Amino acid sequence: MAKNQNVSLSVVRRLPRYHRFLGELMQNGVHRISSRELADIMGLTASQIRQDLNCFGGFGQQGYGYNVETLYHEISRILGLDQKLRTILIGAGNLGRAIATHIEFESRGFSLVGVFDKSSSVIGSSVGGMTVRSMDELAAFCKQEEPVVAVLCIPKDSAQVLADQLVELGIRAFWNFSHYDFAVSHKDVVVENVHMGDSLMTLSYCVHDMMDGESIEEL
Amino acid sequence: MAKNQNVSLSVVRRLPRYHRFLGELMQNGVHRISSRELADIMGLTASQIRQDLNCFGGFGQQGYGYNVETLYHEISRILGLDQKLRTILIGAGNLGRAIATHIEFESRGFSLVGVFDKSSSVIGSSVGGMTVRSMDELAAFCKQEEPVVAVLCIPKDSAQVLADQLVELGIRAFWNFSHYDFAVSHKDVVVENVHMGDSLMTLSYCVHDMMDGESIEEL
Repeated sequence: MAKNQNVSLSVVRRLPRYHRFLGELMQNGVHRISSRELADIMGLTASQIRQDLNCFGGFGQQGYGYNVETLYHEISRILGLDQKLRTILIGAGNLGRAIATHIEFESRGFSLVGVFDKSSSVIGSSVGGMTVRSMDELAAFCKQEEPVVAVLCIPKDSAQVLADQLVELGIRAFWNFSHYDFAVSHKDVVVENVHMGDSLMTLSYCVHDMMDGESIEEL
Repeated sequence: MAKNQNVSLSVVRRLPRYHRFLGELMQNGVHRISSRELADIMGLTASQIRQDLNCFGGFGQQGYGYNVETLYHEISRILGLDQKLRTILIGAGNLGRAIATHIEFESRGFSLVGVFDKSSSVIGSSVGGMTVRSMDELAAFCKQEEPVVAVLCIPKDSAQVLADQLVELGIRAFWNFSHYDFAVSHKDVVVENVHMGDSLMTLSYCVHDMMDGESIEEL
């Protein structure tokens, strides 16, 4: 599979889901699968699956379907999961600690190399097997370790203040749990926002929508 | 503003973001704003904003723009934030604890009324001001307290086993942090998935895409 330069973000966003389902099929000893069978399992249509995978040059064979293991590894490669992007996490509060300990960075293409906080009450404590460093060490650390990704588990105001400094220190991408909107002032970095509050409010809308008996497309 | 039955989910997903920005404008003492000014702040186009808000009957006045406070409260109402959907959280591990303590449920239309776990090591401990209950109490609790929303902070396998029981106990909506795919076997409930691993893998793709010098639409 070749990377296609014009792949839409909505197709990219479905790739991790294909990856999860193919991983499970592998675990269950399934070696090949038709687009129709895969569609049934994933709650998609066969034509959508063929269309998605065709963005990367296709992969199935008429009458055979997909080789599960090959497709899994190709999607891994397309997602860059075989790489280890050096990553720092900033903010070792409840959320930061949960992410550092709960998320498997290594299997998702990242390597968590440092955790930082400004609060003396957590600096020096252990999170996910790492010692929380002071923000005072950030610049020197980045110069030496050259991380390219930062996970932001800090309030919006702190993120706003930090963003320029982090970009200057070589951070090219953010996994952003703060409510700071990078889009407004930083166009030259990659940002994946996880706005959990927004997600919860969307759920609120959809619950009331359901209760009102109105219809809405599937989430 | 009236609810429109044919609002697409992508419009709904932008409402919380409008809500956040309008809340900040209010805090900053801004009383009215044009769609162009709002567009600049939010990194959207004025026509997109007008189009989005028109889904709910519009709201601006030619030559005046939007009244910030009125629009904020209308969007609150549309999102159902003035309601308090009774909510339980299942799984009081790192992630569940972070969500119970970090997320402001009350301001997002929810009221967290119970936290459950199956592990005796956390049952009885305090999370977000609540005592973690045993899963053995779940059925009786739901009969008495009638929660309608469940936050799932448990592994996929546990979610799969629990889903039917929770639906039977009256749960109509899920904020789903597990990797269980409700779409496949439950069509009659509302599910908002937060697949943090998928989000991270999407980021991985986009970082490599950027580094390869290829273009991708903004996240």
